Amino acid sequence: MTPFVYRCTDCGRTYSRDEVRYLCPTCGESYRPGIPLTGVLEAVFDYPAIHGRFQPGRPDWGLFCAVEDRYHPPLPVGNTPMARLDRTAAELGLGTLWVKNDGLNPSGSLKDRASFLVAAEAARLGIDLIVAASTGNAASALAAVCASTGQKALIFVPEKAPKAKLVQMVLYGATVVPVKGTYDDAFRLSLDYTAKRGGLNRNTAYHPLTLEGKKTAGLEIWAQAGFRVPDAIFVSVGDGVILGGVAKAFLDLNRAGLIDRLPRLIGVQADTSDAIHRYVETGVYSDAANPTTRADSISVTCPSNAHGARRAILESGGLTLTVTDEEILSAQATLASRSGIFTEPAGATAFAGLLKLQASSRALPADASAVILATGNGLKDVEAPLSRISIPPAVEPVLEALSL
Amino acid sequence: MTPFVYRCTDCGRTYSRDEVRYLCPTCGESYRPGIPLTGVLEAVFDYPAIHGRFQPGRPDWGLFCAVEDRYHPPLPVGNTPMARLDRTAAELGLGTLWVKNDGLNPSGSLKDRASFLVAAEAARLGIDLIVAASTGNAASALAAVCASTGQKALIFVPEKAPKAKLVQMVLYGATVVPVKGTYDDAFRLSLDYTAKRGGLNRNTAYHPLTLEGKKTAGLEIWAQAGFRVPDAIFVSVGDGVILGGVAKAFLDLNRAGLIDRLPRLIGVQADTSDAIHRYVETGVYSDAANPTTRADSISVTCPSNAHGARRAILESGGLTLTVTDEEILSAQATLASRSGIFTEPAGATAFAGLLKLQASSRALPADASAVILATGNGLKDVEAPLSRISIPPAVEPVLEALSL
Repeated sequence: MTPFVYRCTDCGRTYSRDEVRYLCPTCGESYRPGIPLTGVLEAVFDYPAIHGRFQPGRPDWGLFCAVEDRYHPPLPVGNTPMARLDRTAAELGLGTLWVKNDGLNPSGSLKDRASFLVAAEAARLGIDLIVAASTGNAASALAAVCASTGQKALIFVPEKAPKAKLVQMVLYGATVVPVKGTYDDAFRLSLDYTAKRGGLNRNTAYHPLTLEGKKTAGLEIWAQAGFRVPDAIFVSVGDGVILGGVAKAFLDLNRAGLIDRLPRLIGVQADTSDAIHRYVETGVYSDAANPTTRADSISVTCPSNAHGARRAILESGGLTLTVTDEEILSAQATLASRSGIFTEPAGATAFAGLLKLQASSRALPADASAVILATGNGLKDVEAPLSRISIPPAVEPVLEALSL
Repeated sequence: MTPFVYRCTDCGRTYSRDEVRYLCPTCGESYRPGIPLTGVLEAVFDYPAIHGRFQPGRPDWGLFCAVEDRYHPPLPVGNTPMARLDRTAAELGLGTLWVKNDGLNPSGSLKDRASFLVAAEAARLGIDLIVAASTGNAASALAAVCASTGQKALIFVPEKAPKAKLVQMVLYGATVVPVKGTYDDAFRLSLDYTAKRGGLNRNTAYHPLTLEGKKTAGLEIWAQAGFRVPDAIFVSVGDGVILGGVAKAFLDLNRAGLIDRLPRLIGVQADTSDAIHRYVETGVYSDAANPTTRADSISVTCPSNAHGARRAILESGGLTLTVTDEEILSAQATLASRSGIFTEPAGATAFAGLLKLQASSRALPADASAVILATGNGLKDVEAPLSRISIPPAVEPVLEALSL
């Protein structure tokens, strides 16, 4: 852990970590439908201290961490593998292609990273109840981490969350409240809950340490790419907090003088859940009116981190794309059959974006290095690919029954 | 890689790795129902060479590997986390309790380790087709690894394998043949196939490198326990090959002079799939007549590695136990809610065995260190725990609707 302050990403005011909890007291409005969060706080570390102590040969990631080790949950999170796909890179006209497989976190998604850090913060604050709204993954993540620490998890999920995710969170022992309506309804309800009834709110972007937790995926990408900055990182975007977390990793590395450029961040959204894409393209924010995408983890009407995600994409020289559900499910199958990595539709959205970009006039150049961030495990939603594949009928167990 | 020979575990004859492929030519009978494999081969390394070169501070696991690096698939496999459960250890009267979470392999099970090594061997031999019979996990594992290498996977599965496992292997691009009947029928059919139509057979124990691949889980347990030998390792047992692989890890470490004792191996079976348990207890082998357990991954009539598993358990001073399906599903929920680790029923069987042992007169002593090997991801079969839990009904998204 390195000393840090919170800085408002809108007005720039700074606060000690015990002065504020969620948003900037000046800029953070209470949540209203159709208004992305304002006053989101960013942790600003003592970068010279990190610079002086960080050794790439023996990386001490704790230097980039905002909560003391002694509060960390016992569940190992992160340190997921990054696979190199040489055949697919060549086919797509890329120099190098990696897939960072964050579906291999304990609850099956990158969200474990955020839950880990917020649970640590709750332990530091002596708060025993952690509350979250989630499309499913953040909730499973919070439930898993709390199971390991003995903290209580209270979770609001849209009633249409995939069954596997609901089973997980109940089995982990969380209190699960399916909510009629959308993720945005669940989000608002969870804010009401912690405002009026207590507990620490782990909502994404709302609690500043969710971004810090997700940042660790970006730090690992840098290390696994050989302590080099990839040219582009493709990230599926719903709320925009995973993208924000990855951006924060490279900002921190840059501020600490460990890298001298940022990777281009390519945000990929489902075409029915495209609020951030339109915001980046036009500069004007409006909700995604009717997000119906099969990629449930990125199905969002009003992305909480719309402002931060847009800023990060533009600062990095990146861009956004949208893809259809058909492109997402096709990319899921392509990725599985080329790499052995089975990622959920939201994770495959990033790969669908790469396929689309490389087929366009904006394709990355032939020597470019790119990373696909696969955010969740495909086993979380086996119904999604089922619509595209068929399981062959059973045969008698004799060689003569086989046409192969 | 270190030079090795194959040695028959029955007659002790040795062979170079290019003289034999599957079983000892003298002792290995062709597969017949009701007869566990005989003539299973074991890789015997140049242990003095390993001893001279292995440094616990910078472990080079390649020294224990039977196939050259250059043939290894690009899919990262293994290096899964091992979580320490201090609260649960105290409750169970143990000094230390770890859970090795091998469900966090790319296809969601420990079987990736065996498929990885057999795919490497196929590459070395220039064979493009790999064939397997599987209850589901080995097949998904083979399909995943072959997706990463471009090799072809042909897979025979019992028609009742869980849907998530079938979806996975089809999506990975394998040729999947559901077979009417049991795992044992699929096993026999796959042997017929490679004998008469070609390809490399990856069947568990039948191909000697399946044991070697699974061995890596044991090596990692040793390292993650601080390069110490745990007092006991609990392993769910179906075919007995995972247990055999874990045993081989500690035998190799012992032969290389790196450890001076073996962990006690506790094999846990479902009570309807208990052939190895009865074999250990009585010394007389007979099939499990009707294995109906919900823990599909360990549902086996005639375990291929019955002889090897029994030998390993007895040599280690270990024992076997059986548990009911009710105990398995209860243990799955208990483990999830205490640790954040959601393992499939077969993985939870090991934990059910620990709970049962600690409640018995044979309980491990209060200072003992124990490891639970969680072999597969719970997301592979979310129907199993669904029978025991309920998802609460959805509520309106207003605070007043909550009784919490």
